[in-house]
Amino acid sequence: MAPSMKEHEADVVIVGAGLAGLSAADALSRHGKSVVVLEARDRVGGRTLGREIGGRVLDLGGQWLGAGQKRLARLAAELEVSTFPTYHSGEKILVRDGRISTYAGTIPSLPVPGLVALHLALRKLDALAARLPEGRPLAAAEALAWDDQTLETATQVLISRADVRELFDAAVRVVFGAEPREISMLYFLAYLRAGGGLMRLVEIEGGAQERRFVGSAQELSIRLAARLGGAVVLSAPARRIEQDTRGVVVTADGVSVRARYAIVAVPPALAGRIEYRPLLPVVRDQLSQRMPMGSTVKCIALYDRPFWREAGLSGEAVTSTGPMSVVFDNGSHDGAVHSLLGFVVGQKARVFSERPAEERRAVVLGSLARMFGERALRPVEYVEHDWSTEEWTRGCPVGVMGPGVMTGVGRVLREPAGRIHWAGTETATEWTGYMEGALQSGERAASEVGARLEGAGRRE
Amino acid sequence: MAPSMKEHEADVVIVGAGLAGLSAADALSRHGKSVVVLEARDRVGGRTLGREIGGRVLDLGGQWLGAGQKRLARLAAELEVSTFPTYHSGEKILVRDGRISTYAGTIPSLPVPGLVALHLALRKLDALAARLPEGRPLAAAEALAWDDQTLETATQVLISRADVRELFDAAVRVVFGAEPREISMLYFLAYLRAGGGLMRLVEIEGGAQERRFVGSAQELSIRLAARLGGAVVLSAPARRIEQDTRGVVVTADGVSVRARYAIVAVPPALAGRIEYRPLLPVVRDQLSQRMPMGSTVKCIALYDRPFWREAGLSGEAVTSTGPMSVVFDNGSHDGAVHSLLGFVVGQKARVFSERPAEERRAVVLGSLARMFGERALRPVEYVEHDWSTEEWTRGCPVGVMGPGVMTGVGRVLREPAGRIHWAGTETATEWTGYMEGALQSGERAASEVGARLEGAGRRE
Repeated sequence: MAPSMKEHEADVVIVGAGLAGLSAADALSRHGKSVVVLEARDRVGGRTLGREIGGRVLDLGGQWLGAGQKRLARLAAELEVSTFPTYHSGEKILVRDGRISTYAGTIPSLPVPGLVALHLALRKLDALAARLPEGRPLAAAEALAWDDQTLETATQVLISRADVRELFDAAVRVVFGAEPREISMLYFLAYLRAGGGLMRLVEIEGGAQERRFVGSAQELSIRLAARLGGAVVLSAPARRIEQDTRGVVVTADGVSVRARYAIVAVPPALAGRIEYRPLLPVVRDQLSQRMPMGSTVKCIALYDRPFWREAGLSGEAVTSTGPMSVVFDNGSHDGAVHSLLGFVVGQKARVFSERPAEERRAVVLGSLARMFGERALRPVEYVEHDWSTEEWTRGCPVGVMGPGVMTGVGRVLREPAGRIHWAGTETATEWTGYMEGALQSGERAASEVGARLEGAGRRE
Repeated sequence: MAPSMKEHEADVVIVGAGLAGLSAADALSRHGKSVVVLEARDRVGGRTLGREIGGRVLDLGGQWLGAGQKRLARLAAELEVSTFPTYHSGEKILVRDGRISTYAGTIPSLPVPGLVALHLALRKLDALAARLPEGRPLAAAEALAWDDQTLETATQVLISRADVRELFDAAVRVVFGAEPREISMLYFLAYLRAGGGLMRLVEIEGGAQERRFVGSAQELSIRLAARLGGAVVLSAPARRIEQDTRGVVVTADGVSVRARYAIVAVPPALAGRIEYRPLLPVVRDQLSQRMPMGSTVKCIALYDRPFWREAGLSGEAVTSTGPMSVVFDNGSHDGAVHSLLGFVVGQKARVFSERPAEERRAVVLGSLARMFGERALRPVEYVEHDWSTEEWTRGCPVGVMGPGVMTGVGRVLREPAGRIHWAGTETATEWTGYMEGALQSGERAASEVGARLEGAGRRE
């Protein structure tokens, strides 16, 4: 151990100061347990990140409070982080093969047979998802058959029209940051089940994008961390976790923590890069090799006026043309900043990432201009955030399972490895992949560890 | 840097002393370049490993010299490692639903319609594989369509008979250490193409299992390393690779190496766990998250007599009953050690790994006994090797791509990241996944780096 190493002791050491890790730490702390949270970055918040742009803090990461996300709403209220409705008044835009149409309501402007097909496909998928026992997708009778298939081939018959397919694919890319061919049908259905259905995942009103946070979603983590005080150690990437019958030692850059239990609250793809002594069980290690992060780039353009709103447009768009898959209005809560937010996701993100910055900006603005008019070419500011370039996330929004993974090794996703418990939105059974899921996973992990600490206390 | 850190300088630093890394080092060294090879383990040989069992060295890892594997044969001759034919005289065994039958030749004892179906399926798959341009599977017209599908669903119609399916699945599991549902149809076909067809991959005579090495396949790496002398540093896991316009620095436990170029000769799943400065390009990092290692446990039973040979059996068996998928005779070259070798692979390996050692031994021996008779229950020695428990391999025989990976990020598999070049059998275009592939990858990487060193020399 290097001479400058700081040493801490606590009941529980938590790896990762995103919402999962911080909420677990907060829950344990409120029950009188001592905690230390080790965070690799020089900031808290994980996949949420606020940055001041144009005089207001906007979100470069996760940013929405969805309908029915009760933990997230409660936490925001408790921490006095205000929320406001996502702007969605006016007509929406659909771009197919470069042709632009507008529509009102939730149903895109497809020809009638396309609308019928879309409606039927969504109903069918939600009905299939509903067959999964709540929180236990592996217990479904069809689990293995669904896990044999990619989402692409599983929906080939169900979604055979090209127009419906494009809409569906765009929705899938945004939700997972991955292509339908990369995703297991079983994992997809489990994800729908956890989030309340596909329409709910993609909608604003009544859906996952219903409200936003004043001052960014990261504010929740910042305030949770403030409450935990000195217990959160920044710039301390966990490198090694040792455990024996008495406890765990987590060694990070410059600091080590000895504790009774550990909660690893980072995605499996990152958890697998930590060194474990003894090694993790085989199946857990295999899982950590099999849940890659999706690809998401957020592109934010600021304008001097909300010209789309003035033209009766909501700012919402779905497109199969150009780098982005969806666009949202992204103005600040107080109307001071006017902004459009585009998502470059899945395979398009991987191609996009490799282009020079100037070219990326030009294609995004060009695409916005085709949808919203020439004024989109002249933003007062343009900001991008590519989550795949972040060493301590390696992709967004979520870790994804391909075929065979869930039935093969998914059973250990939440299974403690000795004294190591697992949190993070990937391990959630409600709203997997969302901030709400992160909170649910933190709650569960804190409760698991809390029970073991109490049990041990009684025995001693 | 810790005070005890040893520092080296070389033209090229190589990470991984398996056959890929050592053969690259050897080639560069013979061309007058200085090399240092950093190996995480306290031994060389990577996925090959000899251990003295019953007075002879047997292989716990890769062990066969296949027909047509010209680099491997040449290397063995050059290093004076003798080879001998894999024993395969006598009848083979097929076990289906617990029913045992024997057969001669290469065609299992299926009912005639099953034989016809098997023959047609193999011909069809080899014909599809032949459509891939050599060494450039992504250039195939059907690449994307094949990458949409799992091998499971892609072959559902082609291989619809349960008896043929069981044989096929057993073959796939042994070749990849993975289930057909985990493997992209495109990756499977590319693998067949690189190895010369499915029959060639699974056969002994004329196939990938044709000959064995006296004293284990690891002997090749041991002798290559001896030739490299002090250039191979053991117990030195590479933790960080930094590069700038002048060169690279690889920092391992206790040692760092400054060099002009680096060759990382470990599987992508392991390469991704190294820290890079600057970070790897996004697509390369995504690839390292998307090529998990298969699951293989080798089970070796030693007997006082080769009772199966005496009963006219070759020792070869394919089974869908019990933990193993295939069995081979594994006697030593000189007839001194009599042995059967069983493979527990794919999903069965993941379940097997979690059982207690006593139970594992009992089910393997019980399974051998049903095939070869009661005498199989009484080995003089029983040895297992589970490659998924090895921190510096994390599974065997090979890294596997699920759907969407090859077309999504596979294009950077062999693309240098600045001064970092990639080797390892996963990057081979001939005999991917085999020792021959490791050698081909080492040859290619050495040649790439050699050309850059020469080019730089001319410019200076």
